Amino acid sequence: MTIEIRPIAFVRSSRVETIDDDWDAVTSAIELAEDVPAESLTGLDAFSHVEVIFVFDRVAVATIEPGTRHPRGNAAWPRVGIFAQRGKNRPNRLGATICRIERVDGRRLHVFGLDAVDGTPVVDLKPVMKEFLPREETRQPAWATELMRGYWTKP
Amino acid sequence: MTIEIRPIAFVRSSRVETIDDDWDAVTSAIELAEDVPAESLTGLDAFSHVEVIFVFDRVAVATIEPGTRHPRGNAAWPRVGIFAQRGKNRPNRLGATICRIERVDGRRLHVFGLDAVDGTPVVDLKPVMKEFLPREETRQPAWATELMRGYWTKP
Repeated sequence: MTIEIRPIAFVRSSRVETIDDDWDAVTSAIELAEDVPAESLTGLDAFSHVEVIFVFDRVAVATIEPGTRHPRGNAAWPRVGIFAQRGKNRPNRLGATICRIERVDGRRLHVFGLDAVDGTPVVDLKPVMKEFLPREETRQPAWATELMRGYWTKP
Repeated sequence: MTIEIRPIAFVRSSRVETIDDDWDAVTSAIELAEDVPAESLTGLDAFSHVEVIFVFDRVAVATIEPGTRHPRGNAAWPRVGIFAQRGKNRPNRLGATICRIERVDGRRLHVFGLDAVDGTPVVDLKPVMKEFLPREETRQPAWATELMRGYWTKP
């Protein structure tokens, strides 16, 4: 069973190389694909944040990890299942990131904090509603906090 | 340009009909597809929450809204773009919901708060890291807050 999806937009970013960290240094816009009407973005700017679902299309299928690995190959961190990490070499190669909306400008949605390189296909955009955020305190293992240390801003 | 994705798991839920509200009344497990190793879930239970990305496969392609509509067809709410709402009749029919993890049991991940009916194909699972939640206060229009009022629990 396979499911076909299509890009509804593409990332226009100042970052063209896949680098792990320092994503706040990047400015990005999401530009609608030609067959998607501009009206699909109407009203999105009444929300402060948008979730961007995209495809890590630069990841070679042969490098997808179906089982376990050390996050970022770092042996100091436990070997965990691919669904216990957010790394890009994952089945279906989907990314999902919540971004702050800067503005909507015609067919372009400008955002802060999008960790996807230039040209990345976007397959969905969802407004962030507070009711869809965790309704309880969250908990995560120490390795995840360590890994994320320089993700947005270089320490 | 099309992208092929495959189910990595399926929803096993007490809800078999698509109903809009009262999702907290539902108990769900996510069962790995046959070709996905159980180890892919290793370590996920060190996190409190998981994001489940799934496909609204019961939505007929002909009913997908590419432009604008009133959320839930309610004319009291503004007509907004499909990417300014989270409804299921959307291009690529993807859903994304953050759920609280109850436990991992072999090839089954038991969760609370999954708004997907029995049999729904799941295409990704991502651990929720606090660094990927909004880093600023969120803001949303009044219609969204109203729409969500009975979503988790009947008023």
